[in-house]
Amino acid sequence: MYDVVTFGEAMVRLSPPHFQRLEQTQSLDVHAGGAELNVATGVTRFGLKSAWVSKLPRNGLGYLVRDRAQQFGVDCSHIVWSNKGRAGLYFVEFGASPRASSVLYDRSHSAISMIQPGEVEWAKILTGSKHFHMSGITPALSASASETTVEALKAAKKAGCTVSYDLNYRKKLWSPAEAKKIQEPMMTDVDILITTEEDTNVVFGIKENDYEAVAERLARTFKFKIVVITLRDDLSVLKNNWTAIAYQDGKIIRDRKYEVEIVDRVGAGDSFTSGFLYAWVKEKDVQKGVQYGNAFAALKHTIPGDFNWSTLEEVEAQLKGAGSRISR
Amino acid sequence: MYDVVTFGEAMVRLSPPHFQRLEQTQSLDVHAGGAELNVATGVTRFGLKSAWVSKLPRNGLGYLVRDRAQQFGVDCSHIVWSNKGRAGLYFVEFGASPRASSVLYDRSHSAISMIQPGEVEWAKILTGSKHFHMSGITPALSASASETTVEALKAAKKAGCTVSYDLNYRKKLWSPAEAKKIQEPMMTDVDILITTEEDTNVVFGIKENDYEAVAERLARTFKFKIVVITLRDDLSVLKNNWTAIAYQDGKIIRDRKYEVEIVDRVGAGDSFTSGFLYAWVKEKDVQKGVQYGNAFAALKHTIPGDFNWSTLEEVEAQLKGAGSRISR
Amino acid sequence: MYDVVTFGEAMVRLSPPHFQRLEQTQSLDVHAGGAELNVATGVTRFGLKSAWVSKLPRNGLGYLVRDRAQQFGVDCSHIVWSNKGRAGLYFVEFGASPRASSVLYDRSHSAISMIQPGEVEWAKILTGSKHFHMSGITPALSASASETTVEALKAAKKAGCTVSYDLNYRKKLWSPAEAKKIQEPMMTDVDILITTEEDTNVVFGIKENDYEAVAERLARTFKFKIVVITLRDDLSVLKNNWTAIAYQDGKIIRDRKYEVEIVDRVGAGDSFTSGFLYAWVKEKDVQKGVQYGNAFAALKHTIPGDFNWSTLEEVEAQLKGAGSRISR
Amino acid sequence: MYDVVTFGEAMVRLSPPHFQRLEQTQSLDVHAGGAELNVATGVTRFGLKSAWVSKLPRNGLGYLVRDRAQQFGVDCSHIVWSNKGRAGLYFVEFGASPRASSVLYDRSHSAISMIQPGEVEWAKILTGSKHFHMSGITPALSASASETTVEALKAAKKAGCTVSYDLNYRKKLWSPAEAKKIQEPMMTDVDILITTEEDTNVVFGIKENDYEAVAERLARTFKFKIVVITLRDDLSVLKNNWTAIAYQDGKIIRDRKYEVEIVDRVGAGDSFTSGFLYAWVKEKDVQKGVQYGNAFAALKHTIPGDFNWSTLEEVEAQLKGAGSRISR
Amino acid sequence: MYDVVTFGEAMVRLSPPHFQRLEQTQSLDVHAGGAELNVATGVTRFGLKSAWVSKLPRNGLGYLVRDRAQQFGVDCSHIVWSNKGRAGLYFVEFGASPRASSVLYDRSHSAISMIQPGEVEWAKILTGSKHFHMSGITPALSASASETTVEALKAAKKAGCTVSYDLNYRKKLWSPAEAKKIQEPMMTDVDILITTEEDTNVVFGIKENDYEAVAERLARTFKFKIVVITLRDDLSVLKNNWTAIAYQDGKIIRDRKYEVEIVDRVGAGDSFTSGFLYAWVKEKDVQKGVQYGNAFAALKHTIPGDFNWSTLEEVEAQLKGAGSRISR
Amino acid sequence: MYDVVTFGEAMVRLSPPHFQRLEQTQSLDVHAGGAELNVATGVTRFGLKSAWVSKLPRNGLGYLVRDRAQQFGVDCSHIVWSNKGRAGLYFVEFGASPRASSVLYDRSHSAISMIQPGEVEWAKILTGSKHFHMSGITPALSASASETTVEALKAAKKAGCTVSYDLNYRKKLWSPAEAKKIQEPMMTDVDILITTEEDTNVVFGIKENDYEAVAERLARTFKFKIVVITLRDDLSVLKNNWTAIAYQDGKIIRDRKYEVEIVDRVGAGDSFTSGFLYAWVKEKDVQKGVQYGNAFAALKHTIPGDFNWSTLEEVEAQLKGAGSRISR
Repeated sequence: MYDVVTFGEAMVRLSPPHFQRLEQTQSLDVHAGGAELNVATGVTRFGLKSAWVSKLPRNGLGYLVRDRAQQFGVDCSHIVWSNKGRAGLYFVEFGASPRASSVLYDRSHSAISMIQPGEVEWAKILTGSKHFHMSGITPALSASASETTVEALKAAKKAGCTVSYDLNYRKKLWSPAEAKKIQEPMMTDVDILITTEEDTNVVFGIKENDYEAVAERLARTFKFKIVVITLRDDLSVLKNNWTAIAYQDGKIIRDRKYEVEIVDRVGAGDSFTSGFLYAWVKEKDVQKGVQYGNAFAALKHTIPGDFNWSTLEEVEAQLKGAGSRISR
Repeated sequence: MYDVVTFGEAMVRLSPPHFQRLEQTQSLDVHAGGAELNVATGVTRFGLKSAWVSKLPRNGLGYLVRDRAQQFGVDCSHIVWSNKGRAGLYFVEFGASPRASSVLYDRSHSAISMIQPGEVEWAKILTGSKHFHMSGITPALSASASETTVEALKAAKKAGCTVSYDLNYRKKLWSPAEAKKIQEPMMTDVDILITTEEDTNVVFGIKENDYEAVAERLARTFKFKIVVITLRDDLSVLKNNWTAIAYQDGKIIRDRKYEVEIVDRVGAGDSFTSGFLYAWVKEKDVQKGVQYGNAFAALKHTIPGDFNWSTLEEVEAQLKGAGSRISR
Repeated sequence: MYDVVTFGEAMVRLSPPHFQRLEQTQSLDVHAGGAELNVATGVTRFGLKSAWVSKLPRNGLGYLVRDRAQQFGVDCSHIVWSNKGRAGLYFVEFGASPRASSVLYDRSHSAISMIQPGEVEWAKILTGSKHFHMSGITPALSASASETTVEALKAAKKAGCTVSYDLNYRKKLWSPAEAKKIQEPMMTDVDILITTEEDTNVVFGIKENDYEAVAERLARTFKFKIVVITLRDDLSVLKNNWTAIAYQDGKIIRDRKYEVEIVDRVGAGDSFTSGFLYAWVKEKDVQKGVQYGNAFAALKHTIPGDFNWSTLEEVEAQLKGAGSRISR
Repeated sequence: MYDVVTFGEAMVRLSPPHFQRLEQTQSLDVHAGGAELNVATGVTRFGLKSAWVSKLPRNGLGYLVRDRAQQFGVDCSHIVWSNKGRAGLYFVEFGASPRASSVLYDRSHSAISMIQPGEVEWAKILTGSKHFHMSGITPALSASASETTVEALKAAKKAGCTVSYDLNYRKKLWSPAEAKKIQEPMMTDVDILITTEEDTNVVFGIKENDYEAVAERLARTFKFKIVVITLRDDLSVLKNNWTAIAYQDGKIIRDRKYEVEIVDRVGAGDSFTSGFLYAWVKEKDVQKGVQYGNAFAALKHTIPGDFNWSTLEEVEAQLKGAGSRISR
Repeated sequence: MYDVVTFGEAMVRLSPPHFQRLEQTQSLDVHAGGAELNVATGVTRFGLKSAWVSKLPRNGLGYLVRDRAQQFGVDCSHIVWSNKGRAGLYFVEFGASPRASSVLYDRSHSAISMIQPGEVEWAKILTGSKHFHMSGITPALSASASETTVEALKAAKKAGCTVSYDLNYRKKLWSPAEAKKIQEPMMTDVDILITTEEDTNVVFGIKENDYEAVAERLARTFKFKIVVITLRDDLSVLKNNWTAIAYQDGKIIRDRKYEVEIVDRVGAGDSFTSGFLYAWVKEKDVQKGVQYGNAFAALKHTIPGDFNWSTLEEVEAQLKGAGSRISR
Repeated sequence: MYDVVTFGEAMVRLSPPHFQRLEQTQSLDVHAGGAELNVATGVTRFGLKSAWVSKLPRNGLGYLVRDRAQQFGVDCSHIVWSNKGRAGLYFVEFGASPRASSVLYDRSHSAISMIQPGEVEWAKILTGSKHFHMSGITPALSASASETTVEALKAAKKAGCTVSYDLNYRKKLWSPAEAKKIQEPMMTDVDILITTEEDTNVVFGIKENDYEAVAERLARTFKFKIVVITLRDDLSVLKNNWTAIAYQDGKIIRDRKYEVEIVDRVGAGDSFTSGFLYAWVKEKDVQKGVQYGNAFAALKHTIPGDFNWSTLEEVEAQLKGAGSRISR
């Protein structure tokens, strides 16, 4: 059915224009975003067919999130609509050195935090689909969301999907101990783990001399087929370097580093995942996945909003060494 | 200390510009508003000294609400700051005939809904103050907010304040039966009731042939010194007539009707209360109160946001018959 | 497959904000719109499944049009993508009395004007679908677009779809004589004609004492199952009355008149068609169709853009007599 | 040389968007405007060649005013540039009933208030030109501006220009007594007086039973060739009626009344003058002048800013009875 | 009474968005600002109680300035309201290399330039207050403003306040000779001088090999308790380094350098003063003052407007080494 | 008559604000631009008198282009107005590293592409004028535009104008072979060639070891009086270095390099030409021309839109070493 199915929360994202603080602003830019939806929109830019599963309130804010997802061609017909619970919101303040950008979450009591096992017809959605993706945010939302996560991962494996999981630790949602206790058992259903050195340390207590060793140890510990470590170097608030490496079958796969001038860095990691999954789903090519993921992630930094409006052609132009000249 | 003290919730108000629907908008105009804060800001325009008591979360949204209140010179030093609970939000979609404007509330789990008796130093705030104002929204927020309302009303009477109460029934917060059960006992501490024919009927089950009879019966039933009934005639979504009457000591006090071209009608009732309280606090003059209240309410319809940026001079110019010509 | 399939051009619509003239503006609001796409988006608001068939250039403007359509859940997988031809544009200047709103078209040499019979897999799209809708704009675009129109109409009838046709005469695209010569033969494949008194006169030379007689004569002349005449009364540029009547089996079906305060009247006729088709496709109920169409069309006048963001619930609230009060 | 030369102040005009009050706004829309510049821009819309004479400070605000004038093709080469004095500013707050729109002037100490006789080469500019226009604002700016006004009027008559004068009384600039004392002697050089009943009464103390009698008495008293009285009926803040009459050779020339939905009424009188002067300069046709003036003035109400972006074609369409339908 | 009292002019600040030039812009962003008001708002962010003394015109622009000050909780009850004089304005054009940002002042004839000794009840305001702050802009406004400055400084010393003075030389307001002549005698009432190497040289003719020697010589010459020298390194228009040093009791107090990505550098110096005064007023701790001042100043560069919306928590996070990562 | 006459297309330029992609934007910023118009506006900033010759459609878009040109004082009276053909449009997406800015042209079927020899009165315009400027875009528009280019160049030489030509190769308009074939013969009428190393290679197949050798070989091959090579170093998308050199009489003329922080780089080359022509037309001083051109081009990068709003004073301040400090 689908090339990629994702499951998780998406929120209405509100951000003051032009570096203003929340306190001072008289208007807010409106986007939608959430790790798994970001990935669902991302893979459509490469021509994949995707579905996003979630639970949303039956009101203008819930519809807004759905519409923004549909705009990319993501299939939203499996969303569970609810008369209870809110649409999660999050507020982004964009900074410049020495003020880092910051996020204020207002996501408690969301409709999706009330999701229950059995509400989603996983078998129907996943049968015939190729890949299932989630992040560590969903099980952190509530106990029932955590149970539904387990349900979904099991269903994906049963349906023969490959499964990727972005560890994505959110300290405001749960403690490292909770994150470890709940996620460790889930890892048996995961083929591809995507994470950072820091999250690996916080959640699994795994620390090594370098990130390549971290990837290797993760793979060995949890029997992952592939481990991806994304690497961001914060030169300043408005200038970063970006790359990622992957570990597969005892080998480290590396790619070039991108210097990025930051317009909006939110969702860059999800863009990486999107590009990676494109190559994975199409060709099971991890080297290409890392390259497409990095290029797509680098481009994301230059586009407002969580979603990535770059095209496959633009990603491939990056791989061929697109320059900084204006393109006419 | 203060001429007027008010107690209640204020929310961050978000509205799509230029008649857009929530679903379609890419930006939201940001205001702050809430019945009792609207009144606190309103009376400052007449030169009164006011304080607004509330509970807000210690984050950018809570600060935003405080700052907007302070902008009018409202004393915000008695706000209770909390690390728990959200800032309430509400979304306004502006309509045109035949689409009425509509409000989507996202106020549950707010900091103020968690307020507890004893958190506010009522005696300190109210001693030496002249008037206390509340609305029927506050007790509807939660059981503890309702108890705090009782506490506040008692404290106000004890401090020798006159007390006004805007019935302001909100059907999404409680049932008519709850509203009646909880508010009826409170009415013994109220001197001035401000309401509409419709709310009187829904909450107290009082229905008469005309609104003047309603006012009289309310006054008799609850021993109010004054009952105000505000009267709005919805000619169309963008054109209304506005006036109000008062009942005092067996007499009906009437005023002219205002034809208003609507820019933003939210908060017009609170503007009425502000103008009314100005005359009440200054001179105990109900006739003048109705006139100042009506003029201030009529002007409110023409100003974006919940707050009323008109001046005393502009209100008095209305009373003298200001025309529609451009003023140079 | 689909409840409703439509075929035609959609353009990028650019309009200066706040009543500005094109000459003076420094920014343009961006929408997408086109008669048949407007209908495809409209029926999705009632829960119908729709597809829109068109031809678009493979660039940012073409993608923009597609994305806006997808946002409503319209299936865009049958769009023909082209490296030749432009995205049609149109510019709307909004007026106020005595300056009428006006449209400047820049649609020549569009990709869709180069569409050829055979480029669309009509059988695949229409088989299993219920209804096909077009307007008289498509055959006016070019000779090959006209031939493709004939092809589409034939395919629809063959697939067992009912067919509606909005006459929509555009004087800048062709002469009345051309419009008559090309469209008359097409009418044999049309079940439901939607038009105005004026267009009927211009294109078919049919003029009667009143619009009900026009509807009847049209039905008899062309053997239409149903003829709809939409009726707009321009009280001023910003205030109109709207209604429509239908003729079916010798009977005239009437509905109430809506007084509308105009925010954006473009697409109101297409909204009528959407509401009408909802009732038609679901229940073949023409009375209900006229009612749903009128309510949806009236609501459209209050929403910026060609598309109608009202919901089925809001349409039904109009039918039950929604008032002008703010809805909380 | 020029068809029309005008002389006077133009200011930078700043207005809060969407009905906001100055106190609350976080942005201001920027226009340029001033009675005589408005007329200079207006006549260019009819194809006339115009020059505007003024004095401006040599800074970004002065350049802004010049640029906006040049945008219409007004010749600005005779502006006197100064290192002393400010650019005048004025702030417009747009209202809705019952709040009238209002203007806050900040024009004192402007460069033009420091203009001196001898600074402008009137003979060079006016020789070969057809018409000279001014308003009663210029002599009110300062004593030296008043002397320069006399100088200019004399030069115009000497050069054989016809002269029009818009009385335009500004109570914040001078008293009625001053206005009378200074302007009465100037009237001998004026051919066409444009005014309102009210200004005539305030400045010249002329009051009659109706405006037609006022026009006649003005013409007789001051030997004007033509007297124009503009007539505005303020139905509400957002809805007015507009027309004007002229008196010439003992006859009253009348025209239809325009119902206008107001977007921005500032400059409507100057638009009238522009349309009137077009017919005057081209054909000395007062009937046509009143008609073109009224249509152009009516259209002005619908366009943001002081300037009128309507075209000759649009004016003539009004005279032929343009409707309220959208023009495609 | 107050922790900090400041006295000086604040203006309405108007700036074209997104790097536009004044000449080209169609809108202006509206802020309020002025050295002493900036400081009064700044110290409130640290929890201090402040009052700002000034003179403003009784109109929408004067109210706007007051409201913006009140928004921060600054006590504005001592402002002198006037029917004469304007609100000062200033226009900021934001640049990028090689075009520096620039300011166009339009502040002459302001209400505060007409302030007279005796108009402010200094004793009432300053008695019981801890600190008084001014800048060298106020005495430069007019002779009477200069006299009022002397009056204020004397009153502050008499009331037992410590006094800080930011030299802030403005070459458009007076010559170096005037600045020296008028300010030298004032220095006897100043405890803390805040300045730059350049201003010290221009005003007092003091030049040394390095800024530390300048600080020392200033302290010795004028018997200042503390001398602060702020140090800005303009790497480019959009990238600066910022730090400051202080001289106290023969010792130089230094702090780290901040690399700042500039959003809006106006008011950074006043932010420094605010942070410095927080530590001074609270603890007389100069080392901490320099650190808090530098962090607050560095953060100011990233926030639009003259005012600094950072919080005490954010300042302290900088001192602990906040990174450039997004904060979730 | 004119100091500088230019001939070519100008388009309406539409760009999404704040780094958005076309697909995602809901508004477009509106500018006008085109190589030769950019030069015509540029030279007016230096006080030269310029005329721009073109062909535009008689509609709001055509008027918009004219008005924007007139705003700078460019004489537009020689524009040929047409009822056929469109206004060319182009869309600019602004990028940040690693996404380069990009342009989407929608210029086919423009009015100017239909221009015919004989439509412009070249003799009338050029007689008495000093300089004529064109770019290689105009002959690329169509065969008839190419013929008109030849006509114009011949007329310029006949009128005694010096002639400059910016090679400006546009690969979407023609092939290198066509560009060579059509332009080589034109070069005999050109005095000053302005180009880049890259365009020289593509069009004329001239490649040397360095750009100075390229300049020399061009001059020798085509007998140009002067050859200018502009040099841009793309450090990143938002940071470039800019300079240019000239070859005259066997000598290379060099200038400093400018580091620019990019706001909008479109039109920088045309700004160079404007500054260069200022010195050329005034003093035939090539060294000064390169300096003024470079400074004006560098400043252009910091200003939104194709046009350059810098002043002669600002250019000269750059030559004197203007710093990065805010200018007060």
